[in-house]
Amino acid sequence: MSDQPRTVGLLGGGVIGAGWAARFLLNGCDVRLFDPKPDAERVVGNVLENARRAYEQLTLAPLPPEGELVHVDSVAEAVEGAELVQESAPEQVELKRDLLATADRSAAPEALICSSTSGLRPSELQAEMRRPERFLVGHPFNPVYLLPLVELCGGAATAAETVERARSAYASVGMHPLVVRAEIDGFVADRLLEALWREALWLVHDEVATTAEIDDAIRYGAGLRWAFMGTFLTYRIAGGEEGMPHFLRQFGPALSWPWTKLVDVPELDDELVEVIAAQSDEQARGRSVRELERLRDRVLVRLLQALRVEETGAGATLAAWERDLLGRTPPAAAGANGSGPLRLTSRRVPVDWIDYNGHVHESRYLQLFADASDALLGSLGIDAEYLRGGGSYFTVETHLSHLRALEAGDRVSVTTQVLGSDEKRLHVFHTLYRDGEPEPLATAEQMLLHVDTASGRAAPTRDEVRERVAALTDLHGSLPRPGRAGRAVGAPRSPSV
Amino acid sequence: MSDQPRTVGLLGGGVIGAGWAARFLLNGCDVRLFDPKPDAERVVGNVLENARRAYEQLTLAPLPPEGELVHVDSVAEAVEGAELVQESAPEQVELKRDLLATADRSAAPEALICSSTSGLRPSELQAEMRRPERFLVGHPFNPVYLLPLVELCGGAATAAETVERARSAYASVGMHPLVVRAEIDGFVADRLLEALWREALWLVHDEVATTAEIDDAIRYGAGLRWAFMGTFLTYRIAGGEEGMPHFLRQFGPALSWPWTKLVDVPELDDELVEVIAAQSDEQARGRSVRELERLRDRVLVRLLQALRVEETGAGATLAAWERDLLGRTPPAAAGANGSGPLRLTSRRVPVDWIDYNGHVHESRYLQLFADASDALLGSLGIDAEYLRGGGSYFTVETHLSHLRALEAGDRVSVTTQVLGSDEKRLHVFHTLYRDGEPEPLATAEQMLLHVDTASGRAAPTRDEVRERVAALTDLHGSLPRPGRAGRAVGAPRSPSV
Repeated sequence: MSDQPRTVGLLGGGVIGAGWAARFLLNGCDVRLFDPKPDAERVVGNVLENARRAYEQLTLAPLPPEGELVHVDSVAEAVEGAELVQESAPEQVELKRDLLATADRSAAPEALICSSTSGLRPSELQAEMRRPERFLVGHPFNPVYLLPLVELCGGAATAAETVERARSAYASVGMHPLVVRAEIDGFVADRLLEALWREALWLVHDEVATTAEIDDAIRYGAGLRWAFMGTFLTYRIAGGEEGMPHFLRQFGPALSWPWTKLVDVPELDDELVEVIAAQSDEQARGRSVRELERLRDRVLVRLLQALRVEETGAGATLAAWERDLLGRTPPAAAGANGSGPLRLTSRRVPVDWIDYNGHVHESRYLQLFADASDALLGSLGIDAEYLRGGGSYFTVETHLSHLRALEAGDRVSVTTQVLGSDEKRLHVFHTLYRDGEPEPLATAEQMLLHVDTASGRAAPTRDEVRERVAALTDLHGSLPRPGRAGRAVGAPRSPSV
Repeated sequence: MSDQPRTVGLLGGGVIGAGWAARFLLNGCDVRLFDPKPDAERVVGNVLENARRAYEQLTLAPLPPEGELVHVDSVAEAVEGAELVQESAPEQVELKRDLLATADRSAAPEALICSSTSGLRPSELQAEMRRPERFLVGHPFNPVYLLPLVELCGGAATAAETVERARSAYASVGMHPLVVRAEIDGFVADRLLEALWREALWLVHDEVATTAEIDDAIRYGAGLRWAFMGTFLTYRIAGGEEGMPHFLRQFGPALSWPWTKLVDVPELDDELVEVIAAQSDEQARGRSVRELERLRDRVLVRLLQALRVEETGAGATLAAWERDLLGRTPPAAAGANGSGPLRLTSRRVPVDWIDYNGHVHESRYLQLFADASDALLGSLGIDAEYLRGGGSYFTVETHLSHLRALEAGDRVSVTTQVLGSDEKRLHVFHTLYRDGEPEPLATAEQMLLHVDTASGRAAPTRDEVRERVAALTDLHGSLPRPGRAGRAVGAPRSPSV
């Protein structure tokens, strides 16, 4: 995924624009943002803070250094040097058309220009551009930094190559681009969402159910399925062993029953707005939008992680993004110069690692060290292809020493020294440091065994991995041996680490 | 939740009836099932097998012994002795009305009679019953054994008390009853689902998108939010800090744009059925309905567990059900008699401990051992009061040996032996076993240090704790020392554990 834009120009810094800023910045892109609203900087700051918090929890893969955010005062400044321009202004055709035409005049000729519109047609939006062929709709979903869907829809003047470039660019920041082949109002997702939303408004309007009851009717039932299986795959299963035609034959007739009221649109007059607002207040139970955002993000992170295990839906997108991030880590053997241990992992200690006693649970220390071992193995060439080939290292033994306590929010890193190796064994020593402090927090000595995963038995490493392991072992052979290496539990305290 | 029915009569054993059977049986209710179809027994058996597999992973709480399932040959036999009768026949008014009237004549007068109809009005269904006051709709969602939602809707003749009894009965088997206060076709959930489904059919009909693309438009985006937040709460957040009225004002106008085609219903003629079936086949990529069911259940279990952590939506329902199940278990007494190590902890390995390589992460082994240390400390008198007094043990050193691999769903326990102690130090050795196997999976040797939490320095234990530590150390002094005790990483393999 080499198509990640280095610099992105954002037009609009509301909820959607700020979400884009967060996604691009946390993926290492520089962002130039223009929004004439006086509080845009604060809104973007809040969303970015939420996003940082969410990404801390989302993945253990090493994120690139955060990109630089610059707030600018004009469209021209925003698109300067940008490889991708993303417009997220209010849903007004004239406004968007003007912004896009201005961006088009100032942007580099090869820059992609995209609109976040949730329903306006790209052919209308590109009408006043000089280079309309490099324009398309890239419609995201809130929160943009967590939900992977982005609908791509070109207009009459959009080049096929533009769609492909946009697809790569969005995928490079962990998204799932869905190309909408027909240019229709509302694209695909919003037509579906609109249908449900209108029906929901009728239910409130007709006093059948409150906003909370309607939300419950989704989240305790079909919503759980929709998180990973859409309507059609769900109904395929509902049809039982006879599948889809059976389902359609059985439930088809209900379609013509007059259940829905969608022949008409409820008028959003003051009265209905007041009813909905009051019910929504009750449903929020005093929680601020900020609190609800945090809750939403925490739960979305957990759902994405749950889906990742099965590599289904958004979990598959997350897994692919993580593999990409891991693949960008420079090989350790190449970067190692023998002057000291490797420093392969670095992260912030998340708040939810605190146990009920207020401490970071001891198993989390091992998690940090195991991550360092994973990073070491990655740098030695143990990648997805090697694993598919049936070889892998397993930890057979670990000695942990806890020297000082970790705290939530600490930025920590682990250094790794190879103490020895043979064709099957890899003996390593990790040390955990808080950033900026010379005294270690904890150490771990580990013995890893190379295994043929088909037979489950110890087996020699193969080819290039064997060479890299040997080279790194040689390189580290000249480093001083850590004081706690070779220690057994309860041995007398050694003078130094 | 004492209102759990002891015996349930089920009319209909299709996908929904079989799902009810599974939910009731796994919650300990006896089930009497009538379905005239020759393959009903097989269908119910398959669904029950799926449900057992899912429940193995769903909860660590102790499930009651499974209820007894009896297939019977008539409605009268099915309702005999039943406290709750649940009808899940095809969606034909006449058929359901007859079945319910027959059940009403044979059932005990105090039995609840419920219909699973997804859209027929209860007033119509209860029309021929002698005791219509004890009838209501209890509309579940597939898979019934995992999705908590059940819509309750009474007809004109339904007693208020019937609704309350049904609410308790369904909650007792882990469901979330949603009372629909107005009697309308399709209740609440299916009106929303229908709206989305009709729009989806139009998108296929008009060749805008395939079934797979439509499903992706949901599951990579809004579907993730719908798993825990419905439409209204989501849009409240989307409105940003100004909340719901702002959102309605901003997005209200789009409502009257002609995005949706719901003024009309697509005709499900042979051609459209064929198109959908073919696209659905492609989407299924050769996976059978059985495989898709398993995938669906595995993912639903993971999602429910992810939601449980935040106790939100269906996760709150799961947590409440688990608390109920745990409340039914008598407390286990653990006594030390010196004949062997203590066995203080026992649990099932949850499915979400599997990392993305398909293994239980090494840090989870340490979590199991740390839990055993916690249990040991609890049994030695380190309770909340002792901790408030400023004393606590901290782990300073751990040596782990991984001997064989854990798998998700394994029932495991940890034995704990005290190897030594002084006034500040406690030296323990844990061994992890899979239930029913003599060979250990892993071992952990740990040194714990008693600390004055105010000063952060090592300090002697106090009073009763000191006595208990000394007594247990004496008791365990006569046990054989484990072979792996005192081991350093990379030491030659010892002959026994």
